[in-house]
Amino acid sequence: MLEKFFSPRSVAIIGASHTAGKIGYSIVENFVRENFAGKIYPINPDTTPIMNLPVFKSVKDVHDDIDLAVIAIRAEIVPKILKECVEKKIGAVIIISAGFSEVGEKGRRLEEKCKKIITGSNTRVIGPNVIGVYDSVTHVDTLFLSLKKMGRPSPGSIAFISQSGAIGSTMLDWLSEENIGISKFISYGNAMDVNECDLLEYLSKDSSTKVIAVYLEGIKVSGKRFIECLKNITRKKPVVILKAGKTDKGTRAVVSHTGSLAGSSKIYSAVFKQTGAIEAETWEELFDYTRSFATQPLPKGRRAAIVTDGGGFGVLTTDTCEQLGIQLPEPGKALQNKFKKLFPSFVILHNPIDLTGGATNGQYRTAIEECLKSSEYDGVIAIVLYQVPTLDKNITNVLIELSKKYGKPLLCCSSGGKSTRAIAAILETNRVPVYSTPDRVAKSFSILAKYSEWLGKK
Amino acid sequence: MLEKFFSPRSVAIIGASHTAGKIGYSIVENFVRENFAGKIYPINPDTTPIMNLPVFKSVKDVHDDIDLAVIAIRAEIVPKILKECVEKKIGAVIIISAGFSEVGEKGRRLEEKCKKIITGSNTRVIGPNVIGVYDSVTHVDTLFLSLKKMGRPSPGSIAFISQSGAIGSTMLDWLSEENIGISKFISYGNAMDVNECDLLEYLSKDSSTKVIAVYLEGIKVSGKRFIECLKNITRKKPVVILKAGKTDKGTRAVVSHTGSLAGSSKIYSAVFKQTGAIEAETWEELFDYTRSFATQPLPKGRRAAIVTDGGGFGVLTTDTCEQLGIQLPEPGKALQNKFKKLFPSFVILHNPIDLTGGATNGQYRTAIEECLKSSEYDGVIAIVLYQVPTLDKNITNVLIELSKKYGKPLLCCSSGGKSTRAIAAILETNRVPVYSTPDRVAKSFSILAKYSEWLGKK
Repeated sequence: MLEKFFSPRSVAIIGASHTAGKIGYSIVENFVRENFAGKIYPINPDTTPIMNLPVFKSVKDVHDDIDLAVIAIRAEIVPKILKECVEKKIGAVIIISAGFSEVGEKGRRLEEKCKKIITGSNTRVIGPNVIGVYDSVTHVDTLFLSLKKMGRPSPGSIAFISQSGAIGSTMLDWLSEENIGISKFISYGNAMDVNECDLLEYLSKDSSTKVIAVYLEGIKVSGKRFIECLKNITRKKPVVILKAGKTDKGTRAVVSHTGSLAGSSKIYSAVFKQTGAIEAETWEELFDYTRSFATQPLPKGRRAAIVTDGGGFGVLTTDTCEQLGIQLPEPGKALQNKFKKLFPSFVILHNPIDLTGGATNGQYRTAIEECLKSSEYDGVIAIVLYQVPTLDKNITNVLIELSKKYGKPLLCCSSGGKSTRAIAAILETNRVPVYSTPDRVAKSFSILAKYSEWLGKK
Repeated sequence: MLEKFFSPRSVAIIGASHTAGKIGYSIVENFVRENFAGKIYPINPDTTPIMNLPVFKSVKDVHDDIDLAVIAIRAEIVPKILKECVEKKIGAVIIISAGFSEVGEKGRRLEEKCKKIITGSNTRVIGPNVIGVYDSVTHVDTLFLSLKKMGRPSPGSIAFISQSGAIGSTMLDWLSEENIGISKFISYGNAMDVNECDLLEYLSKDSSTKVIAVYLEGIKVSGKRFIECLKNITRKKPVVILKAGKTDKGTRAVVSHTGSLAGSSKIYSAVFKQTGAIEAETWEELFDYTRSFATQPLPKGRRAAIVTDGGGFGVLTTDTCEQLGIQLPEPGKALQNKFKKLFPSFVILHNPIDLTGGATNGQYRTAIEECLKSSEYDGVIAIVLYQVPTLDKNITNVLIELSKKYGKPLLCCSSGGKSTRAIAAILETNRVPVYSTPDRVAKSFSILAKYSEWLGKK
């Protein structure tokens, strides 16, 4: 039922502007520039064409069905316009405008009025107080943030729903910079109609989405529905949730942001645990866990091999793995003997396997491949410090090839400046996740194992 | 006494190579390329010139005093060459070569032999098993890692000592990429002579160093000396330490890395607490805390104002601040009234002060400056999501100017892609630290306050 938000055959932009830089201009520009396949109808009382598109006074003047309307006008006149959308039988409406329940009593009443207008109709509303929807495939893009300042991710398998617009846009900008793809993004703000569960349920059935990331301030549905909804979905796809408003002060900040009731963080954590949702403690964890699930198969257990060319990085990764309960068994006799034949004497054949600063592409291939092949390990953490003189660019081919070959997770840790980041970009594009620190890579491996165990226990 | 490692008038590179790409070539290349002001003497049995420099068979053939010798030859012949250095009365020797106590009994004996050779002499040794020294001002640079793969930071006020070479070089590469300066870097490896305390004491007196970062696997001095040393230094400068080898497995990994005894992590943590050293739990924290101390004045208390243009970021930062005991008092009546006059009605005048997605450079200036001026706050956390349409590049001028004006810390949080990172680079160059996530900025503020309190209690 929410399909029209993502794959509309026609879109009306209400509040389309003639002035470059304005919100109502940027949205029209997005649809034109991104080669949206459907029809675009700018709506404005002044019918001078915008970007050569004919402009209409009202949606009612458009002699065509409209699947999606985007409303970016002053809050006060939203009810009147929304009513026209309902009369025009528009199935999907995104209300960008702010000034509703997040600003107090007057806004709350305005929002109630809007709710009444759509009651009993077939019109569904996302918003108000949102930046809206981004679909990387159909090019629905209501984000009124300039491409110059904010990148758009390419198609991928991560869906992201965010109660906060800024959290959403910043995350998209970050994903885009790191060459990580996305399927759909939805900023759902005050959620007067379409709420987090509606979206989760829709995305759980979306074939292009492999993992769902959520930024949540407070739920808009009943606790019971939220729990049921999560339980059903986490059986099909991982759901990673960053819950904001965990402290007293944080909770108060939530009220003036999206007007939600944040509730006790302990209850939320318990719900996430009970339903198999993955809780991210930080924004970075939300980013890391999501892309781990998006790209990697689940490990069958918690036994990891660490392969490194830097001893210190090996030690730090070992520490975090052990703290998180990731098992790091030493290579067995047979594997040891194989390695002894294949590696120079200075290579340290424990776990971590330390190839040292003389590591070559070939040694990485051997070490990683043997561990992935072996029944002794459920996955590999490859620490690749590209700064050493003996590695060259082809290390990316080795890692990309091996990551697709054995159905086991291969997570990389690389850190540094320009050259390292260029290598990381190639890997990310080819769905090999790269983490910049030992604790990030270890935590991500641990989360994959945890979800795998949860699926097994069901 | 260690001065000659950093400001030598002449350097001999023993094992200087004629072949580009080799370690002994790269080191000569570093000194030539970086315009080292002193004399450079490549040492090699083959006296064909290297990069147009005359080559000598032995340090003894050089008719000039040598302040610093860098040894990059096979471990087995190091004792013989070291003896010649002692005879030549070279004050400072860096032994790059590996193959000593980190590889077992045979190497341990070789290291003992070297120790005996310098006993009673005026020769001090850094190493073996190191990448050596980088001084951003004098251009001593024994790091044999290609500039193409690893950047070198510009002059700054951070000193960094690392037991691990790879941790060191990766951190320098990272600092360089983020435009963060450094005074001196020392990789001290097996520490057969110069140890962590010698270096800490030297750096505590080094006027170009404002903060010392340490990557430590295990101490080489007695516990008593280590404690005394830290106690003395933390009164003068902050010392931020990342202790690796905290778990059983991690400790074992340390043994095969630098041959150190890692010891109980609880004891280390207690020592750090008792001596006022700042413990970093992760590599990212080491990076963040260090640059916070390097650039920011200490707050007089723990009262912070958060200024943001993204509500969700405000909530997340509030959560972490509250978890860490940072106080976030609401602006007092007088300040509130002032803000009411200066800001549009949609600005949320609590703490966080949420300028919302319509934030302008001018509003940031007003909010930050009034809080810095006010006796109600000890510092400001400015969350600047540059993606919003109303901010432009001049926001950097606002932040740079205010950061220098009131003697209170101003920490920024910005996250995103290319445009945001370009802005962050300008800020970092001008000593305004930028953190990419809410928890990173909050933790850094908390650490500044903690150290300030510790100094007050002394």
